[in-house]
Amino acid sequence: MDKKIKIGLIGLGTVGSGVFKTLKNFENIEIVKIAVKNINKKRDIEGLDSSIMTDDAYKIVNNPEIDIVAELIGGIEPAFDLISTAIKNGKHIVTANKELLAKRGEDIFKLAEEHNRVILYEAAIAGGIPIIMPVKTILAGNKITHIEAILNGTTNYILTKMDVQKASYADVLKEAQELGYAEADPTGDVEGFDAAYKIATLASITFHKRIDIQKVYREGITKIRAKDMEAANDLGYKIKLIASADIDENGNADVRVHPMLVSKKSTLAHIDYVTNAVMLKGHPVGSITLSGPGAGEFPTASSVVGDILAIAAEIGKTDYILPMMRCKHNSAANMLDISETTNKYYISIHAKNNKGVIGKIGTICADNDISLASIVQKCVSDDNTADITVITELVKEKNMQNAIRLIEADGNKVNNLIRVQV
Amino acid sequence: MDKKIKIGLIGLGTVGSGVFKTLKNFENIEIVKIAVKNINKKRDIEGLDSSIMTDDAYKIVNNPEIDIVAELIGGIEPAFDLISTAIKNGKHIVTANKELLAKRGEDIFKLAEEHNRVILYEAAIAGGIPIIMPVKTILAGNKITHIEAILNGTTNYILTKMDVQKASYADVLKEAQELGYAEADPTGDVEGFDAAYKIATLASITFHKRIDIQKVYREGITKIRAKDMEAANDLGYKIKLIASADIDENGNADVRVHPMLVSKKSTLAHIDYVTNAVMLKGHPVGSITLSGPGAGEFPTASSVVGDILAIAAEIGKTDYILPMMRCKHNSAANMLDISETTNKYYISIHAKNNKGVIGKIGTICADNDISLASIVQKCVSDDNTADITVITELVKEKNMQNAIRLIEADGNKVNNLIRVQV
Repeated sequence: MDKKIKIGLIGLGTVGSGVFKTLKNFENIEIVKIAVKNINKKRDIEGLDSSIMTDDAYKIVNNPEIDIVAELIGGIEPAFDLISTAIKNGKHIVTANKELLAKRGEDIFKLAEEHNRVILYEAAIAGGIPIIMPVKTILAGNKITHIEAILNGTTNYILTKMDVQKASYADVLKEAQELGYAEADPTGDVEGFDAAYKIATLASITFHKRIDIQKVYREGITKIRAKDMEAANDLGYKIKLIASADIDENGNADVRVHPMLVSKKSTLAHIDYVTNAVMLKGHPVGSITLSGPGAGEFPTASSVVGDILAIAAEIGKTDYILPMMRCKHNSAANMLDISETTNKYYISIHAKNNKGVIGKIGTICADNDISLASIVQKCVSDDNTADITVITELVKEKNMQNAIRLIEADGNKVNNLIRVQV
Repeated sequence: MDKKIKIGLIGLGTVGSGVFKTLKNFENIEIVKIAVKNINKKRDIEGLDSSIMTDDAYKIVNNPEIDIVAELIGGIEPAFDLISTAIKNGKHIVTANKELLAKRGEDIFKLAEEHNRVILYEAAIAGGIPIIMPVKTILAGNKITHIEAILNGTTNYILTKMDVQKASYADVLKEAQELGYAEADPTGDVEGFDAAYKIATLASITFHKRIDIQKVYREGITKIRAKDMEAANDLGYKIKLIASADIDENGNADVRVHPMLVSKKSTLAHIDYVTNAVMLKGHPVGSITLSGPGAGEFPTASSVVGDILAIAAEIGKTDYILPMMRCKHNSAANMLDISETTNKYYISIHAKNNKGVIGKIGTICADNDISLASIVQKCVSDDNTADITVITELVKEKNMQNAIRLIEADGNKVNNLIRVQV
């Protein structure tokens, strides 16, 4: 490398600090400018030179000296405008901004294409786990049609703790908040928004089709009970918040985030606490699973720095364009609605009157073309009520929702309806 | 892509067929020549044009039209001479030949460097699992210091079956041979040679240091008994053939293949049958695990084709040199001998006379600076003998070997000494 590659960092929070500390070790890389919100904040980072700090991020994106801008602030604005400006000024982009990629990815990728620049974003999906680069390079010979992943550490931590401690969602959430694993307002994590952003972007690059984030089905973990965990365990499953994506031969995409009963025999069932994992299925590779830390200062820095080094290795070539690293998903996928899908289900029912209830539920299911894999009646109480756990075979979502309405109309309470891994 | 990239395939066995079938779908790639041993053999491969077949592989490596040679025959010769000739003739190389890489890697990488060509070999290590490319690209910001992997499908199949069926090694080997999972002469797999080739090459590229295959410690699975599996299970472990590599700050490398008790809590314990997995630990990424099919026609083809596409994407640029994909391990690691290492151990002892034996074993261990984590005496028979299972804390290998000699000198039989995951 003849010339040093010049980097501008936007953001010096958890991820930015990790990137700064890691890049220090690379002699061919120079961080020439760092933008922060509060320039007067005391920061305990060794080797940080206050003279390169600014509170005006436009001093980075408009700086002609800078080759690569690393955007590490998150959110839509000002990130979108900063990235757009940087691209127009001829800079390559490295970002960890999953929300921006999911909501405005189309715009920034198009802009990058027009200006012959690349946007890399390994850190935005599954933190330190190498997934975007492998999909774009070494797996490029594959047609990948199925993704099943644990992409949110907070919810996986909560579900693992609920399982291990047989504790309620509310208790574990509180504990997670105290430990800093969950935010004061946990909505983004526990309602599945974060995982939805990530699976939308991952599916786009993997299927080579744009995924409309508005049409990604999303269901969080707030309704999962310790009782569901226990029932799942008895049946050979763990409950995980799974982000999945499927595409069929006609380009119809089924992309979603919801809790799922996963078989204890599957790798995902053993991905615990804040660990993330991505399982891909395709041809010719078959099925592969990549797991590791989904967040955190250093794991995320690993991915940001990997992207920076990949761009740096190409800069200075006569006609560098990083051919395999571009985003090729110019056409939109036809997004299937959840009501059009077919799933297996776990149903937990509290029957008001246990007399004949199994028969009635069986009849409702049969009337709706629902075959049952198992049905367990448990804990008949003195008051003549009963807890019933049903696992179905593959069933149309529409039919299932109809059956649920009828079961409830019959005076029973459906505690939970959770999809089961196929 | 303006011009088609021209490929020469050497070998049309299992892997070669998979590569041929996969590459057919890429319009910018053309297979112009295929070398096979027997040109008259009937092959049931759709679209195979017999006019491009030859039984002289030198017609590929000397063909000026060919850009990339895929060597898929394995073994040292003629593969080494073919690859050397191809590089001298300006061709890039894609190979799945783990034995050649382990034994002659230094020579061919040096030659490739001199001729400004690359050798890619994703398929040589862990089949379809993306590992070499991620290590060279997206993980390039890391200092990886520990690798722990299951790299041989045959032995993992045998160990899984022994565990599940509580069967003997000999019985399961026979079954595996009948099913085609083990070869008639299984030595290369069951004695750990195959895994040793793979870990040596993986460690070289990961540590940026040449690993001397002659100094890789190697121990196979032939002595593992169903009883050891059972005892391990009771203690919370599975027994796996683990290929591992460690490097310290001074560049001392500890690279080995041997059976190991791995905690049921670790991901590797759940990698069963022919699946492979690689766990890497380093900074800043932390610990990541990649798992998937370690062999087979299509998974291996996925990696070969990924490598071919990576080279193809760069050919035609003015000064293409695939910067991140080169091999940078020009200096040799100082290889630690197993006797210099420190490990935890599982010891299975058959005591001839159970009277006072625990005390004696305890004294021998104490005299050799060996702390015990657990000791279980079981199945005292009518003949006054006893089976004793010991798990130690971290102990010097030298001390352990000395203690074993003393325990045996005292009239006991040491059934097995197996290292335990730390």
